[in-house]
Amino acid sequence: MIRDLVKTELKIVSAMGGNVMHALKHSDSSFKNFGEAYFSKIKFGYIKAWKRHRKMTLNLIVPFGKIKVVFFDDRSGESVMDEVILSQENYYRLTVPPMIWFGFQGLHKQESIMLNIADIEHDPSEVEREDLEFVNYKWEQL
Amino acid sequence: MIRDLVKTELKIVSAMGGNVMHALKHSDSSFKNFGEAYFSKIKFGYIKAWKRHRKMTLNLIVPFGKIKVVFFDDRSGESVMDEVILSQENYYRLTVPPMIWFGFQGLHKQESIMLNIADIEHDPSEVEREDLEFVNYKWEQL
Repeated sequence: MIRDLVKTELKIVSAMGGNVMHALKHSDSSFKNFGEAYFSKIKFGYIKAWKRHRKMTLNLIVPFGKIKVVFFDDRSGESVMDEVILSQENYYRLTVPPMIWFGFQGLHKQESIMLNIADIEHDPSEVEREDLEFVNYKWEQL
Repeated sequence: MIRDLVKTELKIVSAMGGNVMHALKHSDSSFKNFGEAYFSKIKFGYIKAWKRHRKMTLNLIVPFGKIKVVFFDDRSGESVMDEVILSQENYYRLTVPPMIWFGFQGLHKQESIMLNIADIEHDPSEVEREDLEFVNYKWEQL
């Protein structure tokens, strides 16, 4: 996997009226700081790519639907790619360090939901964006 | 409304592939501390009640579905009740101080999702639970 990209399995506690799904604790080793929490929804087949944060560390969790997250790391001069599918069946938290390009695609017929718990507040000046064609990646045709 | 129970309207940023929905920022006046974030799901018609936290302040946000949250406050000797429906159409964050009884019911045909960003980590010793009959409240028959 890409250096410093951390994939942590999360607990789902079964309960009759609806499960409780863990996300992030202050005592977790991948927790740095709380800056902001927000949701990004992604419709079936849609792609949001590419984006890179210069300062933000992200914690990505998918409580509903199914999302493919693709990473492109050119920090060390060579290009490294990785991808992870997040869903309730594959319930993980992805901790993404700064300076890694990423994009994601909705794989669930309904809109999927991703929570990001970031270590800093949203700041447009630390975000870089590129077009879909910036990275040569074969997204799913849905 | 119940004393110190804070209802904050949240921003939804429209985007083609799926909206971005705000939840909580470090600089928000209702933010105290980050202890833990977790999701509680609730099935259609199901009720989870009653529960009271002795220490935890909760921040409740519903990114999917529709949930009725009912509060029962007996802190000052008299009984005060309140209820709020949370959904994407009624997109608010509820900040709930300690020592208020609460319960919630799923009002969406699919399972609804509630995020709690709490100021302390989960600690069973600070949670009190009572049966549904503990508070005389007429829940919806669904």
